[in-house]
Amino acid sequence: MKLSDLGEKGAIERFASFLDVKDDAACILHGDEYLVLTTDMIYQKTHILPGMSPEQIGRFIVSVNVSDIAAMGAKPMVFLMACGLPREMEYDYLDRMLRAAEKQCREYGAKYVGGDTKETDALTLSGFCMGRTKRPVHRSGAKKGDVVAVTGNIGAASLGVSVLLSEVRHLGDSAAVEKALSPVARVKEGMIIGRYANSLTDTSDSLSTCLHDIAAASGVGMKVFADKIPVSASTRKLAEKLGLSVLESALNGGGDYELVYTMPRRHYDKVKHKIDTTEIGVVGGQGIVLVSDGSENPLEKKGYEHFLK
Amino acid sequence: MKLSDLGEKGAIERFASFLDVKDDAACILHGDEYLVLTTDMIYQKTHILPGMSPEQIGRFIVSVNVSDIAAMGAKPMVFLMACGLPREMEYDYLDRMLRAAEKQCREYGAKYVGGDTKETDALTLSGFCMGRTKRPVHRSGAKKGDVVAVTGNIGAASLGVSVLLSEVRHLGDSAAVEKALSPVARVKEGMIIGRYANSLTDTSDSLSTCLHDIAAASGVGMKVFADKIPVSASTRKLAEKLGLSVLESALNGGGDYELVYTMPRRHYDKVKHKIDTTEIGVVGGQGIVLVSDGSENPLEKKGYEHFLK
Repeated sequence: MKLSDLGEKGAIERFASFLDVKDDAACILHGDEYLVLTTDMIYQKTHILPGMSPEQIGRFIVSVNVSDIAAMGAKPMVFLMACGLPREMEYDYLDRMLRAAEKQCREYGAKYVGGDTKETDALTLSGFCMGRTKRPVHRSGAKKGDVVAVTGNIGAASLGVSVLLSEVRHLGDSAAVEKALSPVARVKEGMIIGRYANSLTDTSDSLSTCLHDIAAASGVGMKVFADKIPVSASTRKLAEKLGLSVLESALNGGGDYELVYTMPRRHYDKVKHKIDTTEIGVVGGQGIVLVSDGSENPLEKKGYEHFLK
Repeated sequence: MKLSDLGEKGAIERFASFLDVKDDAACILHGDEYLVLTTDMIYQKTHILPGMSPEQIGRFIVSVNVSDIAAMGAKPMVFLMACGLPREMEYDYLDRMLRAAEKQCREYGAKYVGGDTKETDALTLSGFCMGRTKRPVHRSGAKKGDVVAVTGNIGAASLGVSVLLSEVRHLGDSAAVEKALSPVARVKEGMIIGRYANSLTDTSDSLSTCLHDIAAASGVGMKVFADKIPVSASTRKLAEKLGLSVLESALNGGGDYELVYTMPRRHYDKVKHKIDTTEIGVVGGQGIVLVSDGSENPLEKKGYEHFLK
């Protein structure tokens, strides 16, 4: 069976079972705290959007890795990167990309400590990030009665990608395009949420994927309210111009790198004053129910997936 | 200026300067010991030899990463891998590759804890390994009077590669081919050497590169004796059959993943009874002098380099 028959998730599920992979990052006890470790690869054709500058690429590979650390409630410490580079690349381009990556690491409080370079036919960057925490938050801890919440706004990045890939580049001067090109990992938020959350992950794939991952890992159901999902006014307007459903983008579009978590209400009522976050639902019941326009329906799990035809 | 003008080393030297990269692996203090971290990428066209099985590829990516940890005198702890995979790949092939990687990790005492998969046009594997040690050994500590020594035998792997890439595959049933396809990281040796060595690195590039790297980082010279470099009888015989210089392979051929180190004699005299190792020279003097057939000449730094035309 080929990978294109199985899809990325199918392939990962198969080998994740023997590797015991369950979270955004691996977690090991060292001394009196946990080290969390992750790796994330980006590839020219699949991840690098038209018009992305070397600085944006450098920041992007750092942010997607750091987001996995934030999604464990941990503080980023160190970053390494293996670079597969085409021989025709200008040194100046590489230099701009790596300097931007280094600066982005510093902004997240991490140190860019090393890497590797190899010659490849198309740009391939593999980041690796390690963070630390006394209290790692897994996907598997959601409890009945927990508030379901997200940070920031959802749905902008995937609309930004639509703009960048389409003929409507004149719509490009928007926050959505900025979010697609320069996502920001929610490090500060992750560390605050990490103190109290029962479960936590990031929306690299999509909100619906996050909710399903948490529900499955925790063995719980959820009720989620469509009209509570935080979508900015400009995202709404852009979806309208593009003729796309903003709810569809918010639920199934990836790339926002916001955090999705569940937390007892007594803690949520404190946390909500400290960070930009929105309550979108509650843990309980059977399956994941989406309440939209007064009707209740099962929420489908949809998101970008590699390999699938 | 393009990367093909600068070469891999030139490019690395430029950005290593702002990243402060000086060793096989990065080193950070955590609690009462050091964590050492490395990443190494392999790519279908450049690294994967003809006829390499998925199991050999899986073991190879683990070993080249673990070797960097051994080259700091550290004990491997965890391994992660980002996999860029072509969509036509059979799942069975991936499964065999990853299971072999996982088994190889266990043999080195490390745990394969996670990774990433992305769709790429050609197989690209980025390994990441972290180890621990109370006493990391850098390239920069070599001292006048130190013994210069290597583990195991040198020169076999590059001859093995020549066999695999040539029309002389009937010579293929040799230890050299085995070493090229399945290099072994010197983990146990690295931990013993690490207790006493002043400097340490691995021969992933070549022996001459190692010696120059240690000498430059430490600000010392060396005298190295050609007839002391450990080359096995079968490697000698194979070089003869191929019409290649065995000394050239030993000095400038990469891929053996042996350890090169310098150590005070009083320690070396104990260590040499515990591991398979050979004294090849002494630290001191100006530059690196190779003594061969009674004459002394400067040792050139040569080894495989990406990007260069």
